[in-house]
Amino acid sequence: MFAATPEPPYTAVIFTSRRTDRDEEGYGAAAAAMEAEAARQPGYLGIESARDVRTGLGITVSYWATQADARAWKAVATHAQVQRRGRQDWYVDYRVRVATVERHYDAGR
Amino acid sequence: MFAATPEPPYTAVIFTSRRTDRDEEGYGAAAAAMEAEAARQPGYLGIESARDVRTGLGITVSYWATQADARAWKAVATHAQVQRRGRQDWYVDYRVRVATVERHYDAGR
Repeated sequence: MFAATPEPPYTAVIFTSRRTDRDEEGYGAAAAAMEAEAARQPGYLGIESARDVRTGLGITVSYWATQADARAWKAVATHAQVQRRGRQDWYVDYRVRVATVERHYDAGR
Repeated sequence: MFAATPEPPYTAVIFTSRRTDRDEEGYGAAAAAMEAEAARQPGYLGIESARDVRTGLGITVSYWATQADARAWKAVATHAQVQRRGRQDWYVDYRVRVATVERHYDAGR
């Protein structure tokens, strides 16, 4: 369930969003298709995602081997059709942050 | 609802966890207290959090002005009592990643 990321450094793309209450079915299908497409991209390391039904806030973090891989994914993920549907139907708002992971630790360490 | 972060660079602490199904009340109170305490720490910029009831996966991202601020918060957040309760009662597992945010963009950009 946690992304099986390697030793740092690697790249994290933090996508934070607020959903509209519209088109749950279309959104769910598109989100699943996007995750499957991400997994086929060069440098893909994994993805972690949670949407909080109380607040409507969703956080999806995708992990990439390099910043260049993350940029290439952005070009795919933001192609015109997805952008249009995202703005019109799915998201009240969203924000993307691209970061370099420098260290990590697990429970008990 | 989104953290009001400044222009990069700044630091993101990505905390991914799987909850047990125990002690929802104690966990909720402790989580709220931790968020309030984070907001009083030097260099605090904001926090975004979502827990997915379908999967049990939670993602909390806290943002800090510098890596040193994030380290200081880790020392506070992982003091012995919280660690013990976290491992015994609240979390099946968790992972922390510390990252430098290098760029960001919002919907429509």
